[in-house]
Amino acid sequence: MMHIDILTLFPEMFTGVLGHSILHKAAEKSAVHYNVVNFREFSDNKHSSVDDYPYGGGAGMVLMPQPIFDGVAALKERADSKNQRVILLCPQGTRYDQRKAEELAKEEHLIFICGHYEGYDERIRKHVVTDEISIGDYVLTGGELGAMVVIDSVVRLLPEVLGNEESHQKDSFSTGLLEHPHYTRPADFRGMKVPEVLLSGNHKMIEEWRNKEALRRTLERRPDLLEKMELTPQQEKWLREVEKEDN
Amino acid sequence: MMHIDILTLFPEMFTGVLGHSILHKAAEKSAVHYNVVNFREFSDNKHSSVDDYPYGGGAGMVLMPQPIFDGVAALKERADSKNQRVILLCPQGTRYDQRKAEELAKEEHLIFICGHYEGYDERIRKHVVTDEISIGDYVLTGGELGAMVVIDSVVRLLPEVLGNEESHQKDSFSTGLLEHPHYTRPADFRGMKVPEVLLSGNHKMIEEWRNKEALRRTLERRPDLLEKMELTPQQEKWLREVEKEDN
Repeated sequence: MMHIDILTLFPEMFTGVLGHSILHKAAEKSAVHYNVVNFREFSDNKHSSVDDYPYGGGAGMVLMPQPIFDGVAALKERADSKNQRVILLCPQGTRYDQRKAEELAKEEHLIFICGHYEGYDERIRKHVVTDEISIGDYVLTGGELGAMVVIDSVVRLLPEVLGNEESHQKDSFSTGLLEHPHYTRPADFRGMKVPEVLLSGNHKMIEEWRNKEALRRTLERRPDLLEKMELTPQQEKWLREVEKEDN
Repeated sequence: MMHIDILTLFPEMFTGVLGHSILHKAAEKSAVHYNVVNFREFSDNKHSSVDDYPYGGGAGMVLMPQPIFDGVAALKERADSKNQRVILLCPQGTRYDQRKAEELAKEEHLIFICGHYEGYDERIRKHVVTDEISIGDYVLTGGELGAMVVIDSVVRLLPEVLGNEESHQKDSFSTGLLEHPHYTRPADFRGMKVPEVLLSGNHKMIEEWRNKEALRRTLERRPDLLEKMELTPQQEKWLREVEKEDN
């Protein structure tokens, strides 16, 4: 079972996301255990404060090292496992991607540190944290949403969490390409029709259509992904056909 | 006031995030109004179903066009504004970034469509949606967390939402660089010390240190951001110094 600790000043933010859908079911199946902790509990000063003004002046507050150092130490002491990844969510971190999700899904114990408005004292980054992660090039109010995103992407990869084993093998990014278009009932919705090939029952043609459309979509929207991939000779051929059709 | 509608099958997932911190305060200040709607309500079939098997076969379910088409139409009809951005969260979308957040923050009415496990019928993408957005190259269980991320990054940019006007002008990405390190009390924490310059009281030296450290951090962690930026002559000089120091 994976153990996930979350250090935050806003534990209530997590109830909706951890309490529903896959993340909730994963905990029910004992694939994962969540422990959301308000790190203010670990503050050793009489006002239970966790932040202070930045040295050198400037706007905003900075999280003090003590509550985080002691919070992480207490969580490690309680743990069965000796190996923890201590993850800080911040815009300065390594860009998160599916490969990192797959790497973290192999761990036994993840500890997330979520700051809020404040910056982090640099000593936290240097001495406590093993992974600084950014979920994207945009600014969020705090690390909480980033932690939820990482947790969702990791927990769905744990064995037995998703019902159908196949369903994450065909994910976008797992194949290296964006997914092909999907269609369902009705075949004619207010004059908008499903491509005929999908109604043909010809599985070979359907497979080819899907492969080509996945290549087309990736070419149009994310050519950077194609550059990183090694295509099979068959994929190379389809890609050339797609390029010809689009010109 | 910005109006935000969210179409989802899991409305309860949003309570923790919309009900706390900045997103909650923004609603209290009437800077934004949130309306979370279960789009199952709009299903016109007797079982209230919203998805069906994919044409052409394969694993997974696909969201049918009807509930989404009719849900979005109903939300548009109720709206004061005639201009809506209809945003679909999906891995196939345009990569979300701070520039897009700034663009969306100028809108009056955003409608988010959140699928869950299922794919989206392609006709939804083609005929209802104005913006397909991906928050990063990783796979999530549904669009809900993506919608929360976009909403958080947009709402914090609305006028009067953040207390201190300065606090988002110095954000990472707003300046084009990652933020410099921060330090707060104590100056000596268990032998780990704050850099002397920050205790010096010399504002010019502190500014220079911060500028150089922001450049150093960006160079080390995200050289791609530096390539996209136009540096001032002063920044160019600092960058050369940083490069020399690091070799």
